[in-house]
Amino acid sequence: MLHIAPKFQALLVFIEHRFYGESMPFGNDSYKSAETLGYLNSQQALADFAVLIRSLKQNLSSEASPVVLFGGSYGGMLAAWFRLKYPHIAIGALASSAPILQFDDITPWSSFYDAVSQDYKDASLNCYEVIKGSWAELDAFFIHKEGLAEISRTFRTFKNVRSIYSARNWLWTAFVYTAMVNYPTQANFMMPLPAYPVQEMCKIIDGFSPTATKLSRVFAAASLYYNYSQTEKCFNLEGEADAHGLHGWDWQACTEMVMPMTCSEESMFPPSSFSYKEFAENCMEKYKVKPRQHWITTEFGGRRIDQVLKSFASNIIFSNGLQDPWSRGSVLKNISANIVALVTEKGAHHVDFRSATKEDPEWLIMQRRQEVEVIQKWISEYYVDIKQG
Amino acid sequence: MLHIAPKFQALLVFIEHRFYGESMPFGNDSYKSAETLGYLNSQQALADFAVLIRSLKQNLSSEASPVVLFGGSYGGMLAAWFRLKYPHIAIGALASSAPILQFDDITPWSSFYDAVSQDYKDASLNCYEVIKGSWAELDAFFIHKEGLAEISRTFRTFKNVRSIYSARNWLWTAFVYTAMVNYPTQANFMMPLPAYPVQEMCKIIDGFSPTATKLSRVFAAASLYYNYSQTEKCFNLEGEADAHGLHGWDWQACTEMVMPMTCSEESMFPPSSFSYKEFAENCMEKYKVKPRQHWITTEFGGRRIDQVLKSFASNIIFSNGLQDPWSRGSVLKNISANIVALVTEKGAHHVDFRSATKEDPEWLIMQRRQEVEVIQKWISEYYVDIKQG
Repeated sequence: MLHIAPKFQALLVFIEHRFYGESMPFGNDSYKSAETLGYLNSQQALADFAVLIRSLKQNLSSEASPVVLFGGSYGGMLAAWFRLKYPHIAIGALASSAPILQFDDITPWSSFYDAVSQDYKDASLNCYEVIKGSWAELDAFFIHKEGLAEISRTFRTFKNVRSIYSARNWLWTAFVYTAMVNYPTQANFMMPLPAYPVQEMCKIIDGFSPTATKLSRVFAAASLYYNYSQTEKCFNLEGEADAHGLHGWDWQACTEMVMPMTCSEESMFPPSSFSYKEFAENCMEKYKVKPRQHWITTEFGGRRIDQVLKSFASNIIFSNGLQDPWSRGSVLKNISANIVALVTEKGAHHVDFRSATKEDPEWLIMQRRQEVEVIQKWISEYYVDIKQG
Repeated sequence: MLHIAPKFQALLVFIEHRFYGESMPFGNDSYKSAETLGYLNSQQALADFAVLIRSLKQNLSSEASPVVLFGGSYGGMLAAWFRLKYPHIAIGALASSAPILQFDDITPWSSFYDAVSQDYKDASLNCYEVIKGSWAELDAFFIHKEGLAEISRTFRTFKNVRSIYSARNWLWTAFVYTAMVNYPTQANFMMPLPAYPVQEMCKIIDGFSPTATKLSRVFAAASLYYNYSQTEKCFNLEGEADAHGLHGWDWQACTEMVMPMTCSEESMFPPSSFSYKEFAENCMEKYKVKPRQHWITTEFGGRRIDQVLKSFASNIIFSNGLQDPWSRGSVLKNISANIVALVTEKGAHHVDFRSATKEDPEWLIMQRRQEVEVIQKWISEYYVDIKQG
């Protein structure tokens, strides 16, 4: 965006979502209870954007200036939904890695982890199999007398872990996030990582002697995620879970953003099902609220949302990289002449929004160029429209 | 609706708006403060409708059944807005007497009272002039020592009025509401009234001897509104203002439904301007809230809302009768092939929604027939669409 704004003589506005960053409507009490957190939801966020954009345009005497929305991930969903609900305020939206179909039963619940697994399988079948087999090794420590101490040694923790789930989550996070950020160049989105980090992880796993335990191999692979800079001698597997400010997202997941996910037999994770009842009980315990299970599809459209978008919306780009497991819950096919899908095989989580680098591959340069062309078309059409009244 | 539902083999559902009738989310405390009343607004109401319709369809195993919305007045606005915001939940909306353009500066602020005045002028120029002149006679009592006692005599009040504003409001209400319900048949919407009550009021005014005071004539005319049944010997000009359950509307008007109105020199009312500052101060005093002055046009579209509807909506009928002063803030011209305006010259406030009677004029029968045809078309198209997937 910083790169293309001058081409459009555009003002760049980064709107902070209420309850994130410094936008705390009740100050330090904002996260205190369900009563204050009730104001943290996507509808309120969209309404904030509408009020802010309108007032900004008024204050800048630029009421006729077209507004184009950019959003990645949840921000991409918001961008697409904003265009659907407030077409009079923004002329178009680039929704990157926006899984608007990841709700209810629109997308198969196992898609996400199947996609993660596919990334590792594509890198190396052995890698996929080692990871898939590692969970049983981990579970074996469960019944082992010295299990936690051994895990702690294997994972080089500061102090002994209290539960094998800490190790499981630590690995899990590394594999999932690395799949999401499997970028074609060295990057530092969640963590500093080399280009194509999934491939790098698999190289580590494949490089071990076949006699090494699976667990030592996956530990080494996960260390790439947690310690690419090689500055850490030990790890804290039970540290603050909210390193990326995701506490707000937990609340949203427990109230409106209900995305059921399972692990299939074919995934590299232990098979699991989704129990709405358990999920709801967990949310009740955590926040004293019941999830609004079908709210997102009620508010924005469900299984037929492509028909809704086709008939009642225009000027949206859904961009996705197939490396990104979230891509499976997004729009991967053109919906109409002006609601288009840009899909790259090697792209990852909103890679198109990352700053351009000299190492960017041709397909990424092309993708960004296409996006600029489409946006340029929206803007030209807008000016033709207002001229004609 | 009761009449046409069987033709469509339709289930009729009357959804009560939160905070009205018996739908009190906080029981008797619902109207207690801005904290509880904060949940009384049009977005929450629309969301309620969405959740209710979706859950009803699920419970009745009728998820494929098309839903058509009917709404009059504010309910008509909600019906049109619902179709705009939730096109995936209802296939069309009949919005009768829905003044969705009565916000900000979309419609001239004097239109409403100019339209009331036009009704009386059309009935009789003398009638209009008598009413127009009566306010000065009333104001003259203001400086008169025995003013309030004389007004009380003229207006046959139970006890002396405390202010000439009581008399003014009493008359004002009678003239405005009678214009709204200037129905072609005897009716009992706000009050029991004869067919074409504006014409009847004017007959009363015109029937007086020219030497009678204007005030005695307008009192007699207003008595038709308050006492058509002729059971009242005296009137209470300072009674409970909320006879029609409009307390909720007052809150909505002070928060989101800001509809600026003025009386022009040409109207039959004393000229007046609109001061947003005064309005806001009044709301602050009453409810401890500041109005969200531009919210409705931010949420649903402003001056270019016809363009928004044209591009992003379909299947809405805006029906209006030109006798109804609210018609001036509604949609009176076709917007597209499937967003149509049905306008009747002699119709009043959502007259099409009143039960059919044997006395109904031909234009009203025709209007209702047209509405049924359009709705039938939506439903047929819906079934074609779902067959084609």
